[in-house]
Amino acid sequence: MNLRVIATGGTFDKTYDPLSGDLIFSESCIPELLRHARLTDTINFQPLFALDSLDMQDSHRQQILEACRASEERQIVIIHGTDTMDATAEVLGKAALTQTIVLTGAMVPQRVMNSDAQFNLGFAFAAASILPTGVYVAMNAQVFNWNEVKKNRDLGKFERK
Amino acid sequence: MNLRVIATGGTFDKTYDPLSGDLIFSESCIPELLRHARLTDTINFQPLFALDSLDMQDSHRQQILEACRASEERQIVIIHGTDTMDATAEVLGKAALTQTIVLTGAMVPQRVMNSDAQFNLGFAFAAASILPTGVYVAMNAQVFNWNEVKKNRDLGKFERK
Amino acid sequence: MNLRVIATGGTFDKTYDPLSGDLIFSESCIPELLRHARLTDTINFQPLFALDSLDMQDSHRQQILEACRASEERQIVIIHGTDTMDATAEVLGKAALTQTIVLTGAMVPQRVMNSDAQFNLGFAFAAASILPTGVYVAMNAQVFNWNEVKKNRDLGKFERK
Amino acid sequence: MNLRVIATGGTFDKTYDPLSGDLIFSESCIPELLRHARLTDTINFQPLFALDSLDMQDSHRQQILEACRASEERQIVIIHGTDTMDATAEVLGKAALTQTIVLTGAMVPQRVMNSDAQFNLGFAFAAASILPTGVYVAMNAQVFNWNEVKKNRDLGKFERK
Repeated sequence: MNLRVIATGGTFDKTYDPLSGDLIFSESCIPELLRHARLTDTINFQPLFALDSLDMQDSHRQQILEACRASEERQIVIIHGTDTMDATAEVLGKAALTQTIVLTGAMVPQRVMNSDAQFNLGFAFAAASILPTGVYVAMNAQVFNWNEVKKNRDLGKFERK
Repeated sequence: MNLRVIATGGTFDKTYDPLSGDLIFSESCIPELLRHARLTDTINFQPLFALDSLDMQDSHRQQILEACRASEERQIVIIHGTDTMDATAEVLGKAALTQTIVLTGAMVPQRVMNSDAQFNLGFAFAAASILPTGVYVAMNAQVFNWNEVKKNRDLGKFERK
Repeated sequence: MNLRVIATGGTFDKTYDPLSGDLIFSESCIPELLRHARLTDTINFQPLFALDSLDMQDSHRQQILEACRASEERQIVIIHGTDTMDATAEVLGKAALTQTIVLTGAMVPQRVMNSDAQFNLGFAFAAASILPTGVYVAMNAQVFNWNEVKKNRDLGKFERK
Repeated sequence: MNLRVIATGGTFDKTYDPLSGDLIFSESCIPELLRHARLTDTINFQPLFALDSLDMQDSHRQQILEACRASEERQIVIIHGTDTMDATAEVLGKAALTQTIVLTGAMVPQRVMNSDAQFNLGFAFAAASILPTGVYVAMNAQVFNWNEVKKNRDLGKFERK
């Protein structure tokens, strides 16, 4: 495996702030998760920025696109907020990249009990390792092509458009 | 997804027993893990037995083979102890089944801090969803064909033979 | 021990809501915590209401006071939000009750990693068991009489007034 | 508070070893627990040795006694294996020390899910802060004088002799 993980924030990576009582971004949990996953191959971890995906602008999606273009690894996992994961997937999907790019995230932060973050991360790693060139969204044991997915916010699930 | 999870024990599913101080098998952690993974498709969970894989006999591997043969689901994830995962994979691999079967496990029990169990489970789900018919071992972000894998016990890693 | 635990909400008992992304109140975590604490004596658990303590009105403090008055147990632990714990302590302190009442809470919810909830709960249990009749605030290994404590919100600590 | 924590091993501090599959002693979990407890006072942490209490010899108990004698702090919490906690308490109790010494431990390791370690640690801190000079065993919300306690190994509970 020769894989890059690009972190952009999202629910997956939120932390509780004892002073404000809010969920915020601080140190990423991903390097620790990767250690616990006991990976044997080297992973290239790239923390790009840490945003709630509702706060992402076009310029942020361009940054993600540039990071993918510049990646020497042909397998890329992007940790992303769930609310606009489909919009970023579309920007990447239309760019005709030559890699296998899998966007994933979590409905419950990794640092909160009963999170889906580790399961989704493992699922995304396998998808990025096995699927052919393309841009995919992988959440909660489902994998979608970039142009066929939307989030159902009422149910908290991803669905085919 | 139309997937069956067969549980056979292994480190993945061990529990601490406060009276003896030993790691034992009691209620499986897998149904709870599947809930936290927030799966949208129905999963068929089949707890077959709960054994340390060093205690597995040929008859146990035959039971696993029969469970695969009887499975209506074409995607099967088997939770298995790591020490003889390759031996069970060989029994299944030689049986010319028509499903995609992925064996996985954990180096640290799910109920112990910093476990690799959830990552491996997610990884195995994606492998079972995407890979063609065959028998595979998937551990710590690596996937192997049944006839090319062995465990390196000194390093606690799976390697190509 | 003959002890009553009265739950009123607070950070201690908040849960992450995957749909809204907010910390909310749902099922209390306290009965499960008490099981893990492996108590040998019977504990009377009384969930009174579940509020952020900033949302508590005088009427809620009267409800807490009535619950203490009605308690047959002479040792009472109250789980409370940290922001107005001192105000509730004052209402109870001025009521000249004949029990040992200890208010505690958490700066990080029990269901979030690295929480202080279990430590504080254990600390409060010992304080309620050992201290003489009175009303106390016990947080982060400090114990205060009801009339000498205030929360320093900038530091997230309790201090002597 | 002016408190010393002396660590001697025990179930409380055991770690899972992925290579052997055994519970062993490695880095102590206690400094991290103390951080999560958000203590405002300085704690003096003294890791003396790390042993299963069944492996403790008289010489080890003498080491613990010497550490207590040398302690400038008048409040001492000792983290100890449960199986011979009463024997160590007896050695300390007969030594006529002038401090408040509380022995505690856990029935489930801190690094295993649903542990009683944090609750017991908080309980022991309060006991050491509030109780008069003496040697006590504090486990699972009960506190005993050193000369009145024994472990019931069949039930995994501490009882009055």
